Amino acid sequence: MQKIIKYAEDNKVRFIDELIELLKIPSISNDPDSKPEMQNCAEWLHNQMKTIGLENVKIYQTGGHPAVYGDWLNAGKDKPTILMYGHYDVQPIDPIELWNSPPFEPVIKDNIIYGRGTTDDKGQFYIHFKSIEAHLKNKGKLPVNIKVIIEGEEEIGSPSLPKFIKDNNELLKCDYILISDTSMYDNDLPSICYGLRGLAFMQIDVTGPNADLHSGSFGGAVENPINALANIISKLKDDKGKILIDGFYDDVLDLSPQERKEFLRLPFDEEKFKKSLDVEELFGEEGYTTIERKSARPTLDCNGIWGGYQGQGAKTVLPSVAGAKVSMRLVPNQEPPKIEELFIDYVNKIAPKTVKVNVTALHSGNGSITPIDTPAVKAAMVALKKGFNIDPVFIREGGSIPIVSTFKELLGADAILLGFGLQDENAHSPDEHFDLRNFIRGICSISYYLDELADLKKYK
Amino acid sequence: MQKIIKYAEDNKVRFIDELIELLKIPSISNDPDSKPEMQNCAEWLHNQMKTIGLENVKIYQTGGHPAVYGDWLNAGKDKPTILMYGHYDVQPIDPIELWNSPPFEPVIKDNIIYGRGTTDDKGQFYIHFKSIEAHLKNKGKLPVNIKVIIEGEEEIGSPSLPKFIKDNNELLKCDYILISDTSMYDNDLPSICYGLRGLAFMQIDVTGPNADLHSGSFGGAVENPINALANIISKLKDDKGKILIDGFYDDVLDLSPQERKEFLRLPFDEEKFKKSLDVEELFGEEGYTTIERKSARPTLDCNGIWGGYQGQGAKTVLPSVAGAKVSMRLVPNQEPPKIEELFIDYVNKIAPKTVKVNVTALHSGNGSITPIDTPAVKAAMVALKKGFNIDPVFIREGGSIPIVSTFKELLGADAILLGFGLQDENAHSPDEHFDLRNFIRGICSISYYLDELADLKKYK
Repeated sequence: MQKIIKYAEDNKVRFIDELIELLKIPSISNDPDSKPEMQNCAEWLHNQMKTIGLENVKIYQTGGHPAVYGDWLNAGKDKPTILMYGHYDVQPIDPIELWNSPPFEPVIKDNIIYGRGTTDDKGQFYIHFKSIEAHLKNKGKLPVNIKVIIEGEEEIGSPSLPKFIKDNNELLKCDYILISDTSMYDNDLPSICYGLRGLAFMQIDVTGPNADLHSGSFGGAVENPINALANIISKLKDDKGKILIDGFYDDVLDLSPQERKEFLRLPFDEEKFKKSLDVEELFGEEGYTTIERKSARPTLDCNGIWGGYQGQGAKTVLPSVAGAKVSMRLVPNQEPPKIEELFIDYVNKIAPKTVKVNVTALHSGNGSITPIDTPAVKAAMVALKKGFNIDPVFIREGGSIPIVSTFKELLGADAILLGFGLQDENAHSPDEHFDLRNFIRGICSISYYLDELADLKKYK
Repeated sequence: MQKIIKYAEDNKVRFIDELIELLKIPSISNDPDSKPEMQNCAEWLHNQMKTIGLENVKIYQTGGHPAVYGDWLNAGKDKPTILMYGHYDVQPIDPIELWNSPPFEPVIKDNIIYGRGTTDDKGQFYIHFKSIEAHLKNKGKLPVNIKVIIEGEEEIGSPSLPKFIKDNNELLKCDYILISDTSMYDNDLPSICYGLRGLAFMQIDVTGPNADLHSGSFGGAVENPINALANIISKLKDDKGKILIDGFYDDVLDLSPQERKEFLRLPFDEEKFKKSLDVEELFGEEGYTTIERKSARPTLDCNGIWGGYQGQGAKTVLPSVAGAKVSMRLVPNQEPPKIEELFIDYVNKIAPKTVKVNVTALHSGNGSITPIDTPAVKAAMVALKKGFNIDPVFIREGGSIPIVSTFKELLGADAILLGFGLQDENAHSPDEHFDLRNFIRGICSISYYLDELADLKKYK
């Protein structure tokens, strides 16, 4: 491994030069005029995959923007197969006037590279490429079987990816998926994201009288659908943040003492957090820390509400309808279909007979967890520690990453999320940037990780 | 009086012909091109006032559409002065294609006259004109002092009226105001509206975090302003319809046993009412009938609510702000400024510290009541009974009529609302119409009323 790490450090300048080439391609997936640049970027990756030594390299047309695939499957059947996923498409550049340097002409200042796609996700998946190169150039082989898929539609919701995975199930089959497209908890704090929350997104529609009424002539005699809706929403959670839906917590996988201990290690300044949101007091489920509440406990939030008159001034209407969107973040082992059903049953139970209430499930996604004592997670710990010379931390992400659920559903494989970006690197904003120290430490970490993955037995 | 009533009946055809002339003038106040027609209509009224024998007849320029005034003040200082109010402007005619006859070419079918302004309000205030004529032509005098003011901006909210009243306070000074611009409770059921509800219209703005957040990354750790708002709204009323604001009912003038008895006389089919609104069950304050709830008890209704995402599908936002409009209908003796203060105090008391809550008073109006044992109300009972040969009923209107509060505030006089329209006569809609039986019975009733008003002592 010494040789491999030395290679990465010796070739640092060239790696960065190559990354700059990649960053110069304006591969904005939501721009209808970008089709040629998307193809251009896919071809650049195709060449690069060949250069680093991948086999079966091919650009796949997906119906949308192309995906680029390559693999190296000669490690032997006893070795795991790792699918490395990344995306070469980037966010739009508006508002362009807020950039301090042109988004597609990368510049480096104080070891930080500025440009669109630096941290999201070109700079990050290129770490994987260079780790593969370092292994193949120095040892002539990889310690595990590797498949690489880089798609071009992540920033527009990966519309073609599910069909592509279904159509190419055998091609993409793997034991684990490795993704570097998230952030570290803090700089100098390498992080393993081992859990994501799931989602059940509902809509409640309340109908009162069959037409908007004059609140003077009818007010007091007939139920107001907004008041009825507010009453329903107020009964979804108690004043200590506990969700009141019958059976909601039945399947929740409790946080283990070890997980809670790991969370306590994470530096967190509650005063700074409150100040950043400009709130006097935080609010969340009793008995849990803020970090646990926002990443590892199930939640319920209204995402939207409407009804009656929303303009300036007064209008004395007693409206016919009102509605709200309510979503629940779910944790392992909560199943979205069951939660949807519990939600519908509960709302129907508490709804007054004075209005008609209709509850619809709009969208859902599974949460996921790769227990922190899973060998592949333990191996990541060791690799990150070697790559950064710092003990890494475990984190869980409060949101859902749709591609992770998609991979889990269609390939049955868990994802290991090793992000090397930072939360304040302006992904999706002007002056997006990426700390090149983490680029190099990432290459070393992933190089170590491939090595550790080859011998998972020792982590069992 | 026999002579006067005979005169009204003998001249019925001419009265209707004159009304048709008036109805033909398209005096739509919200139409910017209608200025000449408004002036035309004012002049027609000016001539008509002179013809029936009024004095000091004058068209007053108000800044908006003109108002027409006339009086007859020779009854003596011991007789009351009655200000008759009406409006000559009418609603727009759209959707024109739904009219069965042209809106400004009145037609009569089965003793019902069709056309814009028939019931609202030309047909109704013209009843007053013809009662004055009947008295003056037959007796050479009126039993009371009469002032008549007909404005041209009621359908656009009477924007010039308050200033006009202030500027002409002495001119309009009176003991009672008589208005025929409302409906009878039912056909063949002459009605005295002796009370109106007041209004306090509020807005609640709730601010949570200082920006819209991702509900995955922050949900569970910070209060959601929509949930907080729903909780606030749910605490404004209990599940039996009682308003929970501290002190809200303190000043409420309870319904007297006599009033409640009068309300019970009103025919009311609750099943039919529910069916017309398409609701399974009604909802209102415990211990009161539906009629009492919708006209004589204070209420609280959400008139609008908003926050977060209101479009199609799912968007996982934890919004920064949410808001609602909440209005309370007030009854005598509730004072809007005091109720506004109680509302603000209560909402601030129940608002959680996890959000910022701002409560604003947007609009208010005083309720009014003329007790049913007031001599002028008792006199109206007698007059209506004579005019219709049926016992009249007492009703209270659940809404507010702004001109009534304006008159009360600026002239200190109570209004007696004797409406001769019917609720289903399509005021503001296509095929507006007016039952000519009520036109004639109205003329007789008002003629009797002027007579009864001359001797209020006997009702004391």
